[in-house]
Amino acid sequence: MPKIKFTPQNKEIDVEAGANLLKAADQAGLYIEGDCGGRGTCGKCRVKITDGGKIEPTTAEKKHISSNDLESGWVLACQRSVDQDIVIEVPIQKDAHLRKTTLAGGVEDLTAEPMVEKAAVKLSRPSVKDQTADLERLLDHLEKPELTIELRELSHLPALLRNNSFAVTAAMAGSRIISIEPGDTSDQIYGVAFDIGTTTIMGSLLDLKTASVQAVAATTNPQNAYGADVISRITHASESKENLKQLQDKVIEAANNIIKDLLKQTRVARDRVYEVTAVGNTTMSHLFMGVDPTYLAPAPFVPAYSRVLEVEASELGLKVNPAAMITFLPNIAGYVGSDTVGVILAADMDQRKDNCAAIDIGTNGELVLAANGRLMACSTAAGPAFEGAQIKHGMRAAAGAIESVDYTDGEIKLSTIDDVPACGICGSGLIDAAAALLDAGLVEPSGRFINPVENPEKVPNHFKDRLRSGIGGYEFVLVAAKDSDTGDDIVLSQGDLRELQLAKGAIYAGLMILLKEAGLNEEDLDQILLAGAFGNYVRKESALTIGLLPQLPAEKIIAIGNAAGDGSRMALASKTIRERARALPHRVEHLELSTRTDFQDIFIDAMAFKDSRG
Amino acid sequence: MPKIKFTPQNKEIDVEAGANLLKAADQAGLYIEGDCGGRGTCGKCRVKITDGGKIEPTTAEKKHISSNDLESGWVLACQRSVDQDIVIEVPIQKDAHLRKTTLAGGVEDLTAEPMVEKAAVKLSRPSVKDQTADLERLLDHLEKPELTIELRELSHLPALLRNNSFAVTAAMAGSRIISIEPGDTSDQIYGVAFDIGTTTIMGSLLDLKTASVQAVAATTNPQNAYGADVISRITHASESKENLKQLQDKVIEAANNIIKDLLKQTRVARDRVYEVTAVGNTTMSHLFMGVDPTYLAPAPFVPAYSRVLEVEASELGLKVNPAAMITFLPNIAGYVGSDTVGVILAADMDQRKDNCAAIDIGTNGELVLAANGRLMACSTAAGPAFEGAQIKHGMRAAAGAIESVDYTDGEIKLSTIDDVPACGICGSGLIDAAAALLDAGLVEPSGRFINPVENPEKVPNHFKDRLRSGIGGYEFVLVAAKDSDTGDDIVLSQGDLRELQLAKGAIYAGLMILLKEAGLNEEDLDQILLAGAFGNYVRKESALTIGLLPQLPAEKIIAIGNAAGDGSRMALASKTIRERARALPHRVEHLELSTRTDFQDIFIDAMAFKDSRG
Repeated sequence: MPKIKFTPQNKEIDVEAGANLLKAADQAGLYIEGDCGGRGTCGKCRVKITDGGKIEPTTAEKKHISSNDLESGWVLACQRSVDQDIVIEVPIQKDAHLRKTTLAGGVEDLTAEPMVEKAAVKLSRPSVKDQTADLERLLDHLEKPELTIELRELSHLPALLRNNSFAVTAAMAGSRIISIEPGDTSDQIYGVAFDIGTTTIMGSLLDLKTASVQAVAATTNPQNAYGADVISRITHASESKENLKQLQDKVIEAANNIIKDLLKQTRVARDRVYEVTAVGNTTMSHLFMGVDPTYLAPAPFVPAYSRVLEVEASELGLKVNPAAMITFLPNIAGYVGSDTVGVILAADMDQRKDNCAAIDIGTNGELVLAANGRLMACSTAAGPAFEGAQIKHGMRAAAGAIESVDYTDGEIKLSTIDDVPACGICGSGLIDAAAALLDAGLVEPSGRFINPVENPEKVPNHFKDRLRSGIGGYEFVLVAAKDSDTGDDIVLSQGDLRELQLAKGAIYAGLMILLKEAGLNEEDLDQILLAGAFGNYVRKESALTIGLLPQLPAEKIIAIGNAAGDGSRMALASKTIRERARALPHRVEHLELSTRTDFQDIFIDAMAFKDSRG
Repeated sequence: MPKIKFTPQNKEIDVEAGANLLKAADQAGLYIEGDCGGRGTCGKCRVKITDGGKIEPTTAEKKHISSNDLESGWVLACQRSVDQDIVIEVPIQKDAHLRKTTLAGGVEDLTAEPMVEKAAVKLSRPSVKDQTADLERLLDHLEKPELTIELRELSHLPALLRNNSFAVTAAMAGSRIISIEPGDTSDQIYGVAFDIGTTTIMGSLLDLKTASVQAVAATTNPQNAYGADVISRITHASESKENLKQLQDKVIEAANNIIKDLLKQTRVARDRVYEVTAVGNTTMSHLFMGVDPTYLAPAPFVPAYSRVLEVEASELGLKVNPAAMITFLPNIAGYVGSDTVGVILAADMDQRKDNCAAIDIGTNGELVLAANGRLMACSTAAGPAFEGAQIKHGMRAAAGAIESVDYTDGEIKLSTIDDVPACGICGSGLIDAAAALLDAGLVEPSGRFINPVENPEKVPNHFKDRLRSGIGGYEFVLVAAKDSDTGDDIVLSQGDLRELQLAKGAIYAGLMILLKEAGLNEEDLDQILLAGAFGNYVRKESALTIGLLPQLPAEKIIAIGNAAGDGSRMALASKTIRERARALPHRVEHLELSTRTDFQDIFIDAMAFKDSRG
């Protein structure tokens, strides 16, 4: 069996002859970036063969790797099968950068209403005159004879009582005793709230006695190895039960890593975490629960379930108290998941009286409109452009990503996350860049670069070298090779602009359809809420410049941060809020846009870069 | 590592040097009889070393094995550690013989009231106009939106619906959907009722649509390898969590073998078994559930729980439908278990109006009295004498056991189970033999053999050779070596009579205490019910002769068969009866005899063989 050595991580594995290198890396526990699920189209899974036979580059490699780099041994991992011992250099990944993850958010003003209650008791000792069984003795003392108990806890109850002078604490969730602990632990009630994103998984540890966040942690969703988008993952999962299990195992493992991190930060014991909530899009929910997501992909996009799922931690293998209830908030529809439910909770949309729209742009774009007591939602195939996928030099919001671009005084100015040399462009940078190039007159409202040959007068001298002919049209050099981190020019291509147009057109059109169904016009909106990390960083002016948002005063557009995750925290902190979540699948009207011709009409019209600034 | 070969079973295993031979046999899957849990006191784990070094006999071996047999290589497996390769001959065990296990019993007149209900449905197909999720589509159709579903079933629901044209059957237990099956399976609802005896485990498969028994099966309780009595097993379990797990694994494995047998007999699919009930003494209940039984052994004999335990099959590893609910009927006290609850149900003791006592003699003796609307119960340390343990040539009721002994026309006549040459004596034979020897004047009411030297005139000539001096007193030869299956004389010893006196005295005294508490005399009893296999085979006349039972007309003494098992079947067949069982721990008054001086007084008095015949 061929051996693969990965450097600088210094991991070795043996693989079957013919094994795929990308999968082998995954097997070795190495995460190699990639967006296309191994199809060879994104060109991001670059690794370097430093020892082992040379082989002819594939078409995909020729497309994505310069001939110099090919000569040096760079390949696309997804394109390579391994037939002999090789040594591979894997570039160190820049982890998804959590630009502003704080302890705050979502739970500041909440009254703590944990589902779990604790009672510390001191029981009388049994005697020949009082032979009451241990469990009944405990329940009598709690004055709750109707409670049931986990067999796991009952099994060691006799010794626990006698080793602790019959002084113990019972943790109760609803009608169940989920834990019996030595002594008085009644001040220790913890929970973890997850936001299971397609790209990033975040977790918060809450003290449920005070509804306060004690620690946060995040990690890349390791399902990325099976494709950056949900469709790739649904496809993979639909191929076999083993594949579905594999994807579930990946996300559970990541969640466990986050839990471990949270427990380490706070020195809370694993068994003291009694409740877990999670939000995520409908596909993430299915994969987390190990439920077949196959029929989410083709029309009519039907989920296996909408309701809240409640499952014991032990059934999922989550490493908290084994009897902890894992509550995944409900889905609204195949492409409107519990992440949107989280946004609705965080923004109080099920309770507020004004007309308010929320836009959550993640790998997909979900929109919610609260108007006249109604709640409506839809999803748009915005594509992952705002997360850097499908964009030539696109990347997630990590160190070195161009995050803002400004056209001022005839000059284009950029800044990167962490102020380090640029290695790509993230979503907010993309919108800024398009807006800046529109302002500079280099891009037409139709989305085409102006033709510098036909219109040389429109291109200022200092831009002449930067607006150049590229593959599939013109491209603009944002950062020259000499100044970049990658040693290559970083450009915005005509293709990139087209991706942006598709994405922003879909979101705009989705919002228009919601307003139409509610009988409203855009000026009737009291607020537009921008949810998600993206919402925090996009500049409203740029969003208005490119027509991503309707024409509204900038003060009515409000970034509300990671509202999905905040909703998860709120549902964890308060059972009242959890009940609000439970009711939402019945309450939210879902609009399916894919078959509506009125949506198509607005969408096509909305792709143009029309300036919405007042 | 030394190798052990077991013949004629032809099994080989490697063991650590110094491994105990009895444990090694258990590990190899061979059941070697034994009552003392490997302490060397019962002398029953005889095996023959046919190849491998000779070694000095231990004290225990010298006590239990003749010098001829020691010479031939016979040893006690529990006394031997294995340090070199050896070949062992293991005598073929005669399995506990189920003398009269029939399909009848306990459920003939019941109305079927299964907990599980089924509904066959045909759902409308989803469309873009109706994107309702699969689960909600099913629940809407069932008109039961409040039901929860097992994740196991939800996970494959999408494919199940689409592969079966949306025609499926839902199996529901209370508020849970436990199974979703292709097509219409609504006529298939099965359950298994267990009787977990210390010695024998029995199971019955019921068709729950008709409350009819379809098949029965039984096996020896493999926990026997850790001692015949509950105290040995409690001791073993209390030593470590691993030991407890080991005992649980043994009984679950045996239960699974029974289930396999039942399914094979009836060709019912495993997944169509949705409910399981079980009864057993309190220790068996704890060990089945894997709950620490340590504090059952010492006073005040406190169980971990009394109530009904309900656990999913998957949690216990029982191989029926994984979501099937396993219901272990409740315990009354540490030594009055759900087997007694089964007796109460089977004999309708919680509902009848007359004064009625039930005696269940198994490894222990439990007694119940229903009188004036009260229900009282106690247990007596009758010891396992009636099951053949502690009796010199005692054995369980299997082929070759002397089961009846008669003194007629000055002669003692015997019969054995299956009419084969005798190899020992079982409980009913023991009582008969004592009664016959009392009738023959060879045993005094005090329980002593008459002294044939002092009273030669009392010994008829044809008995002179048979009443002879043995270890610890006289003994009577029931079967001479030339007629026995073992090639040895089969005798009833003075020690055997003493064991019988202790056992019968305890039971009689227990019954008297119950009557005293109820303010009744023995003549107030309308019926005495004899439960258990023992009750079926003991001859009332003999029981009255030796004073096991109080002086009542024989027609008031009624054998009711395996009432504990019948109670398990009844609780399985009818949820109403299960609710009756649930109420019993609160209703039955338990009397603890061990500390009562009035019990001791009656007990000592009751040990004499006073004739109760009218």
